[in-house]
Amino acid sequence: MAGAPVVGPIKCKAAVAWGPNQELVIEEIEVDAPQADEVRVRIVAVSLCHTDLSFLAMAQAQFPRILGHEGAGVVESVGEGVKDFKVGDHVLPVYVGECGECSNCKRDHNNLCEKYWPCLKGTMMLHPVGQKSRFSVLKEGKVQPILSFFTSTFSEYTVIKADCCAKIHDDAPFEKACLFGCGLPTGFGAAWNTAKVEKGSIVAVIGLGTIGLAAADAARIAGASRVIGIDINPKKFELAKKFGVTECINPKDHQSPIQKVLQDLTSGGVDYCFECVGNVDLMLAALESTREGTGKTIIVGLDPSGRPLSFNPTHLFGRSIMSPVCGEYKGKSHIPGLIDKLVKQELSVDEYITDTLPFEEINKAIALLKNGDCLRCVLTMG
Amino acid sequence: MAGAPVVGPIKCKAAVAWGPNQELVIEEIEVDAPQADEVRVRIVAVSLCHTDLSFLAMAQAQFPRILGHEGAGVVESVGEGVKDFKVGDHVLPVYVGECGECSNCKRDHNNLCEKYWPCLKGTMMLHPVGQKSRFSVLKEGKVQPILSFFTSTFSEYTVIKADCCAKIHDDAPFEKACLFGCGLPTGFGAAWNTAKVEKGSIVAVIGLGTIGLAAADAARIAGASRVIGIDINPKKFELAKKFGVTECINPKDHQSPIQKVLQDLTSGGVDYCFECVGNVDLMLAALESTREGTGKTIIVGLDPSGRPLSFNPTHLFGRSIMSPVCGEYKGKSHIPGLIDKLVKQELSVDEYITDTLPFEEINKAIALLKNGDCLRCVLTMG
Repeated sequence: MAGAPVVGPIKCKAAVAWGPNQELVIEEIEVDAPQADEVRVRIVAVSLCHTDLSFLAMAQAQFPRILGHEGAGVVESVGEGVKDFKVGDHVLPVYVGECGECSNCKRDHNNLCEKYWPCLKGTMMLHPVGQKSRFSVLKEGKVQPILSFFTSTFSEYTVIKADCCAKIHDDAPFEKACLFGCGLPTGFGAAWNTAKVEKGSIVAVIGLGTIGLAAADAARIAGASRVIGIDINPKKFELAKKFGVTECINPKDHQSPIQKVLQDLTSGGVDYCFECVGNVDLMLAALESTREGTGKTIIVGLDPSGRPLSFNPTHLFGRSIMSPVCGEYKGKSHIPGLIDKLVKQELSVDEYITDTLPFEEINKAIALLKNGDCLRCVLTMG
Repeated sequence: MAGAPVVGPIKCKAAVAWGPNQELVIEEIEVDAPQADEVRVRIVAVSLCHTDLSFLAMAQAQFPRILGHEGAGVVESVGEGVKDFKVGDHVLPVYVGECGECSNCKRDHNNLCEKYWPCLKGTMMLHPVGQKSRFSVLKEGKVQPILSFFTSTFSEYTVIKADCCAKIHDDAPFEKACLFGCGLPTGFGAAWNTAKVEKGSIVAVIGLGTIGLAAADAARIAGASRVIGIDINPKKFELAKKFGVTECINPKDHQSPIQKVLQDLTSGGVDYCFECVGNVDLMLAALESTREGTGKTIIVGLDPSGRPLSFNPTHLFGRSIMSPVCGEYKGKSHIPGLIDKLVKQELSVDEYITDTLPFEEINKAIALLKNGDCLRCVLTMG
């Protein structure tokens, strides 16, 4: 257990995004003490998710900012009124906050807390007017505030709402636990909580990144008889088989659209199709690749284009479309249970970690992810 | 029990549609003997559904034709190879056929038999090339074939596939049982089988015709705490309250779109919204009126316009859209159980029957339904 909480700011290293598509810069920053209902966490290991990269590419986004929303660490200090954490607790910052009090939090099948959703209102990401950021940097003699992003885990210390912090098992290795911040529960939950994949069913997964493979992996565990993986990068096919993908399709190898290929390959459509890319054309393809009368389309990807998903409603006969957020897992209530499975070796996540690097080499990790050469690159702090 | 089957054609009265939007004409027609795997049914009572009217309004449809798909009667004769029916059985013709052998029939959650779906292939509606219609009429000395439509119940006798025929309880009154041919199971099943409405939930129903009211009724039985009815015809509001509708909204009374009205009225959206009109704009309104994070949109109406349903997929976060056919009920397997509930008085359908007329007055029944002045008008045969 750590000692008494440090009252006041802390100086540490963080990877700061200074502008769209710029390389992150490791800077010495200052992290404020946690305010009421907040905790300050010493991050031990982080991993990169595509959403970090997507945000970094947004020309209209404000900078400087500390990205990162997959990370695991130890509570370093707690703000006033925080009852469920103490210094030294092993924790996972979670971007789906959970106040525990609102009607959504009290419902079994809803993980979108009214206090923190939509648009992540109330989290550290959006600072209410007049509220100062918890991060700052001294540049040319001037203190410059740095914005947050979700749980801002690309920093040796971060400040988050206690409602956005999950206590995890003391024996969970940080470099594996960090993966549960976003990608893995998003994929696992899409298959287990949303689709509820059944034994013997036929599953298709469009997009074989970490989330798609986690959905495939979960479908395999649920007993799917076939898990068809679709990706335009054939480099991913060999690895995909380790995650239960039984056959792979590259749409570039086919003249017919992928929905037709899937319909033909399965004599009438797949039972569940997971769209894990974030492209409305693929969402439509997913819908049309499912079995008429029962097929479920699970939209996991987020299309940043703003283009609508558009279809003749008669094509929906007997089918359904759903779009879970973080696999319908409640951050504080559910994710620790998943990590317990990891500790009990009921769940292995080793195959997702294709690379490990020191935190300082975060730009190398970004390049690996951008090039499709890795699933998760885990970065460990000093 | 009736006597030995009549071999050969039968002469009887039927209401024949001679052209789009024309009044039906009661004609003496000839009904062929059932062929292999078919049964001929003496219809005792029929009711009208909007789908009959929609088809009658289709300029591009072929005529003459015998409409009708809600009806109940008695097996008059059976074709070769029919094992599960005998002369005298009380039956309900069902338009969702069930071969019992295909993979969809064998799955619990699929009522779209591969043999008869999509597009009602294999039913009497679409005659395979070279196959003669079972109905004909003598006009100006010439025998003219008459086309079928679903189960063609607007005739004293009809011929249907045995797979499109459900055996019902001998004590079920025909004039109530006929309602289970389409409208009632479509509404009941949308709430019970598809939405799975829970105790205490908030429900909205757009369109207060028979199907909408059946969905409302089923939601009430399932324990919904509020059932909000929406219709532009305020004449329907008084009656709707008998079906569990707790409050009514006329969109014409509001400047805001109906989704906004519903969001405001429920502090964040309804749990389940049933679109029972068949209009893509209302389907979108239904989606946007549901609670973010859990709301289920159940599309029951069929939009004949061909216009797409179009929305930003991020609006689907945590929500789902589904579109059941005939309430996900399998015709032969499930509908008789619903009718048993009627016999045991566990279910009452009296309130749906707002009018009764002799079969000969079918055009009056059509006018009543068109004007929104009735729910179900039941017509009894001579």
